[in-house]
Amino acid sequence: MPKMYLTRRESFSASHRLWNPSLTEARNIELFDKCASPNGHGHNYILEVTVAGQVRGETGYVIDLKKLKAIIRAEIIQHVDHKHLNFDVEYLKGIIPTAENLARVFWQVLEPKITEGKLFSIRLHETENNVIEYRGEE
Amino acid sequence: MPKMYLTRRESFSASHRLWNPSLTEARNIELFDKCASPNGHGHNYILEVTVAGQVRGETGYVIDLKKLKAIIRAEIIQHVDHKHLNFDVEYLKGIIPTAENLARVFWQVLEPKITEGKLFSIRLHETENNVIEYRGEE
Amino acid sequence: MPKMYLTRRESFSASHRLWNPSLTEARNIELFDKCASPNGHGHNYILEVTVAGQVRGETGYVIDLKKLKAIIRAEIIQHVDHKHLNFDVEYLKGIIPTAENLARVFWQVLEPKITEGKLFSIRLHETENNVIEYRGEE
Amino acid sequence: MPKMYLTRRESFSASHRLWNPSLTEARNIELFDKCASPNGHGHNYILEVTVAGQVRGETGYVIDLKKLKAIIRAEIIQHVDHKHLNFDVEYLKGIIPTAENLARVFWQVLEPKITEGKLFSIRLHETENNVIEYRGEE
Amino acid sequence: MPKMYLTRRESFSASHRLWNPSLTEARNIELFDKCASPNGHGHNYILEVTVAGQVRGETGYVIDLKKLKAIIRAEIIQHVDHKHLNFDVEYLKGIIPTAENLARVFWQVLEPKITEGKLFSIRLHETENNVIEYRGEE
Amino acid sequence: MPKMYLTRRESFSASHRLWNPSLTEARNIELFDKCASPNGHGHNYILEVTVAGQVRGETGYVIDLKKLKAIIRAEIIQHVDHKHLNFDVEYLKGIIPTAENLARVFWQVLEPKITEGKLFSIRLHETENNVIEYRGEE
Repeated sequence: MPKMYLTRRESFSASHRLWNPSLTEARNIELFDKCASPNGHGHNYILEVTVAGQVRGETGYVIDLKKLKAIIRAEIIQHVDHKHLNFDVEYLKGIIPTAENLARVFWQVLEPKITEGKLFSIRLHETENNVIEYRGEE
Repeated sequence: MPKMYLTRRESFSASHRLWNPSLTEARNIELFDKCASPNGHGHNYILEVTVAGQVRGETGYVIDLKKLKAIIRAEIIQHVDHKHLNFDVEYLKGIIPTAENLARVFWQVLEPKITEGKLFSIRLHETENNVIEYRGEE
Repeated sequence: MPKMYLTRRESFSASHRLWNPSLTEARNIELFDKCASPNGHGHNYILEVTVAGQVRGETGYVIDLKKLKAIIRAEIIQHVDHKHLNFDVEYLKGIIPTAENLARVFWQVLEPKITEGKLFSIRLHETENNVIEYRGEE
Repeated sequence: MPKMYLTRRESFSASHRLWNPSLTEARNIELFDKCASPNGHGHNYILEVTVAGQVRGETGYVIDLKKLKAIIRAEIIQHVDHKHLNFDVEYLKGIIPTAENLARVFWQVLEPKITEGKLFSIRLHETENNVIEYRGEE
Repeated sequence: MPKMYLTRRESFSASHRLWNPSLTEARNIELFDKCASPNGHGHNYILEVTVAGQVRGETGYVIDLKKLKAIIRAEIIQHVDHKHLNFDVEYLKGIIPTAENLARVFWQVLEPKITEGKLFSIRLHETENNVIEYRGEE
Repeated sequence: MPKMYLTRRESFSASHRLWNPSLTEARNIELFDKCASPNGHGHNYILEVTVAGQVRGETGYVIDLKKLKAIIRAEIIQHVDHKHLNFDVEYLKGIIPTAENLARVFWQVLEPKITEGKLFSIRLHETENNVIEYRGEE
């Protein structure tokens, strides 16, 4: 059976502040500049989740998109949409919410839930000019 | 001379919370729902500023785009980008930062600064699905 | 109070065939060409609904976007999404489903339902290159 | 019959240089800055042509899009695509090829050719951030 | 010589219905839900074809884009644009026209026609949120 | 530490002419057709630069995007924006400025400057339909 890559695109709106509490204020500002602004700022994030798998003969699907959409919404969007990523999300506690760190946590959350096909890639667009992709590689 | 409409598109990333302090918490949640989330959330706003005016024969321009861009950046983007719209912006103090109210304040800020041509429209995209346009009409 | 134009963007996927049953086959093919293909074809339509109105002081809203979205989904999207526009939609019976005719029917369906502000414009994108706008003008 | 606004989007790739030969080099550079670069530069222009008119009962069309597309391609795209706008286009001779001046000439070229409905607007996107609209107003 | 990946984007508008004739109606509705709607529905499909190959010194091209465009249009777009994918396309007969199955057939059709460079990937966007990629892997 | 792919998108507007001076005029026109138009033409190029690397614990960054943006602007955009690619750019002298050849030179220019993470891919969009990707492969 042919192997394919299926991508579902979802979006969410959230705020965050880049700040490493183990560093001085001066070092934080040097590292994060305007992203360290005390009251935070925000983005319309676009999340692209790619699942790789064999096409099933019965359906012609790798995975039913309605199921994939439901998983992404239940596991990610519900938790992060219209939230402050530094304070409001259980599974983001203690991390600096850069796009890199978000992509990795989203991978860890989604990977065990994808049982038809396998999670292949998480792409997170922070703005139309900045994108992070994570493929589960260490 | 022909009259034209020149539009410049800029963007900024900011956070906000929709909350009317003169109302009860219950009424705020009824009105603003997830937009009233206590720690705020955020957007990549897209701002389109349209200036109407006669084309000048010397340049073939309504207004030099470099000047328009400089005005928008100095008067708006500098103040709101990577900021919390409820707390960090002098000219937004005391308003509920809905797209409607932002568009109106941006009009008030920009209108006196546009001296070649006249400000015709402010369009503010909060997400790819939600847009407000203000044309200075009461 | 300032008057603003609020636009909500929704989408739906549908099929249609352009065919005027009161004309001959030859004339239909002359008029509609590949759009008259017997088994129909389809589009991802993008629908932009613009409401004009005064901003309310209590909320800073022209109309609550959640309500506008709910109205568009209940009155339009539910009826046309994943449907054949020539056969499956009660309020499209008997019309040739061009973008023009769809826009007009959508206006007639939505206009009485918009009770905060007034319906100002329906824009319907049939493809990324073809768009119809209707503003209720005869 | 209802009145509608039909928009067709086309694109072309061309080069140009902004330079007013009746001015000094110093004044040209002051006015046009990097747009006056001696060997020119270029853009992927997006042209949106809007025609306003009554919907015809026989077809449900304002104007057959295939005809509108054919007119735009024959009268504009053929002449300007993959061309240098200062040198290669008969009807642009002697003008400074700003987006404003291009929009006006395109209006003058297209307006007499649109015989179903009437030309309502020319929108010309020079980049994704800069757009000119001309509606035939003096 | 350097190896590169050249992508050409084309689009087509078609209708389809997801239905497996070897299953019961109940099972079809369970599997395909609104995509099994009896009269079908449709999409503006975006097709991205990627060819990998060495850059040729004489031209600086992997493959002449005009040739690649002509191949895609002759072999795919001509056959599927403004068609019903379940009934009207010879090489789609007998398959369930999911994006996965379309991508695989398009690969089989295009792969032998690409003689400069080699076909590397077929990406098919069914909507702006749903994309399938096939790279010829079993 | 996880390995990620960070992409930064920039754009520039330039003109070029496809012409191989070692070939006859007839052969050039056969090979390059309208791209060989004597006075050149132009594009709004979109450049996507992808860097692969480990996420750093101190920042949660692969590489500070501000630094990556500064490198791309200093090394590429400054040199090519609002320029004629056949005449005005030192490091493009002597090459035919196809998207393929541009991508390769941009790789050679950027690769030694990226010292956090490693350059993984250069994607260059010449139009919205034509894209070249280079990953440093021979």
